[in-house]
Amino acid sequence: MIANAPFSLSCPLPELSFDRIMLGHGSGGSMTRQLLDEVIFPALDIQGEHDGAVLEPVTGRMAFTTDSFVVHPLFFPGGNIGDLAVNGTLNDLAMCGAQPRQLSLSFILEEGLPIADLWEILHAIRIAADSAGVAIVTGDTKVVEKGKGDGVFINTSGIGTLLPEANIHPRRIQPGDRILLSGPMARHGITIMSQRQGLQFDAAVTSDTCNLFPLTRLLLETCGKDVHFMRDPTRGGVATVLNEAALSSGTGIHLLETALPLDSAVEGACEILGLDPLYVANEGLLLAVVAEAAAAAALAALQSHPDGQQAAIIGTVVAEHPGMVIMESRIGGKRVVSMLPGEQLPRIC
Amino acid sequence: MIANAPFSLSCPLPELSFDRIMLGHGSGGSMTRQLLDEVIFPALDIQGEHDGAVLEPVTGRMAFTTDSFVVHPLFFPGGNIGDLAVNGTLNDLAMCGAQPRQLSLSFILEEGLPIADLWEILHAIRIAADSAGVAIVTGDTKVVEKGKGDGVFINTSGIGTLLPEANIHPRRIQPGDRILLSGPMARHGITIMSQRQGLQFDAAVTSDTCNLFPLTRLLLETCGKDVHFMRDPTRGGVATVLNEAALSSGTGIHLLETALPLDSAVEGACEILGLDPLYVANEGLLLAVVAEAAAAAALAALQSHPDGQQAAIIGTVVAEHPGMVIMESRIGGKRVVSMLPGEQLPRIC
Repeated sequence: MIANAPFSLSCPLPELSFDRIMLGHGSGGSMTRQLLDEVIFPALDIQGEHDGAVLEPVTGRMAFTTDSFVVHPLFFPGGNIGDLAVNGTLNDLAMCGAQPRQLSLSFILEEGLPIADLWEILHAIRIAADSAGVAIVTGDTKVVEKGKGDGVFINTSGIGTLLPEANIHPRRIQPGDRILLSGPMARHGITIMSQRQGLQFDAAVTSDTCNLFPLTRLLLETCGKDVHFMRDPTRGGVATVLNEAALSSGTGIHLLETALPLDSAVEGACEILGLDPLYVANEGLLLAVVAEAAAAAALAALQSHPDGQQAAIIGTVVAEHPGMVIMESRIGGKRVVSMLPGEQLPRIC
Repeated sequence: MIANAPFSLSCPLPELSFDRIMLGHGSGGSMTRQLLDEVIFPALDIQGEHDGAVLEPVTGRMAFTTDSFVVHPLFFPGGNIGDLAVNGTLNDLAMCGAQPRQLSLSFILEEGLPIADLWEILHAIRIAADSAGVAIVTGDTKVVEKGKGDGVFINTSGIGTLLPEANIHPRRIQPGDRILLSGPMARHGITIMSQRQGLQFDAAVTSDTCNLFPLTRLLLETCGKDVHFMRDPTRGGVATVLNEAALSSGTGIHLLETALPLDSAVEGACEILGLDPLYVANEGLLLAVVAEAAAAAALAALQSHPDGQQAAIIGTVVAEHPGMVIMESRIGGKRVVSMLPGEQLPRIC
């Protein structure tokens, strides 16, 4: 919940001679230096070396990942593009079985962006990085003309060190394995969609964006190499990750609709919007495939953490129907859960 | 020159069911998979794992850097946004004294982008990475609506391993050091500018985009810890890098105008466009500050390489006028070379 603190109140924007991004802020000259020294570095509380960082030696294997973020709108209940960009890359590292260590941070800013918006985004970045214990070590800032971007795009790339227990690969998925989900589905996608459509629901729906490394570490410490596969179901949702896992492993997946965690407000919103929550994006959800014998311990481990209290076993890996995901519905029928061809909700992350 | 080969002729675009980027290509669903499997992975000749890479252990210190590329136009004489994005990040690593090892590659594509353009960009990326001996190990692809981007934006982040001889920092710059430039100034910026303005010059002006690691390695192998500082003068040009170096080191810099390498076609174009070549961006130029005793060997090392044949010693670090760059002109006068406030040429990289 730290990520929802009122940054703009707790840390006011300094007095500046400019209140919007101008093309000159991307020049590499003294306006760029001013933007860095008066806005970006103070907000992140870092001393900037802008062109590259030298890291201390690490032992063991590393993970490396990248993600660009183009979410629209930039601000939404539960977060903004800043903490989303930090958490998204932390989570890609965590899904490799790695402990996130260092991040890079690269902005593409649109001319005219209010500095107050950038300030708020930077503070969300700082709090997300600080609370995850990762350092932002290198960065870049570009500016494009008004109408050639959309406010802010962010790229974060990350380096992590593999936990010794980690051996995560879809090829390790085998019949008998259990599929776990760490919490309720579809919160992030429904939050973005309802913001865009100007919808209000009775109960507040907020993005689930968070750092999943505490959950993946718990799982690996508890179950070790019995954790065969982990993934955060972002774009395309749970259905897409399960289809990819089934295809990569050559196994079938059997889902239980009644076991799928879903908040009632999100469920209601999905009905109104005509969306299947299985395909809606999440940003703070862990899907794990673990050996049958370890499933109960894995579930208990997830449920012991505040971010995993609603974790559930949602299905089983089977030898039948390889490459296919089949769901047993509430009324006992079965249907194929296929991969969506195109875009359900564009620019969700 | 490999980077200028006619990729589109040598490696034709496969038959596809789509000829432009659609929003669905950013969905994370089967259209994304099709774009990856039928265009991006074949063009790069890689087997894709899209969410994170596990790297083998490295010994010693590492460098980590990031850059987003928004150059306009996407294609220009001497290169395109693809090889520019690879070379730019290779060069940031090289400037730390590192050998580039792995790259990430993240696209923000605008709806409607011709696939043929993406194909040509991907081939430039592949050739630049292959010829530098670096692996593209992880990636990401996002799509934004038409009018919310500008064709293609690319982020590359990179990991390298520090060469044992490397000890590069502006604080190591001291009076007596010599300043070397590896070749003629302003080629990249003038190329982009003339493309945008539709200008034609008598002699062809082409971007200097290239991988500078061969030059930095030569320099470090030859001069070791006598290499105090290296930087590629991109946005803001040679003047901006020298001003930053003077400020960071608390020294003064004395430049000799007659020593500055400059092609006559570029010089003529600068005159027509009213630009000072000292401020124009370069993408394949190395500026190095080395100890006085090592300067002759450093110059010979650079000149021994095809990309450094026109290298020159362009100035000296002095104890006088700390933080300032002063240039002795052709006619013997002196002027302050200050940092430009804003943008001379937007979206040069």
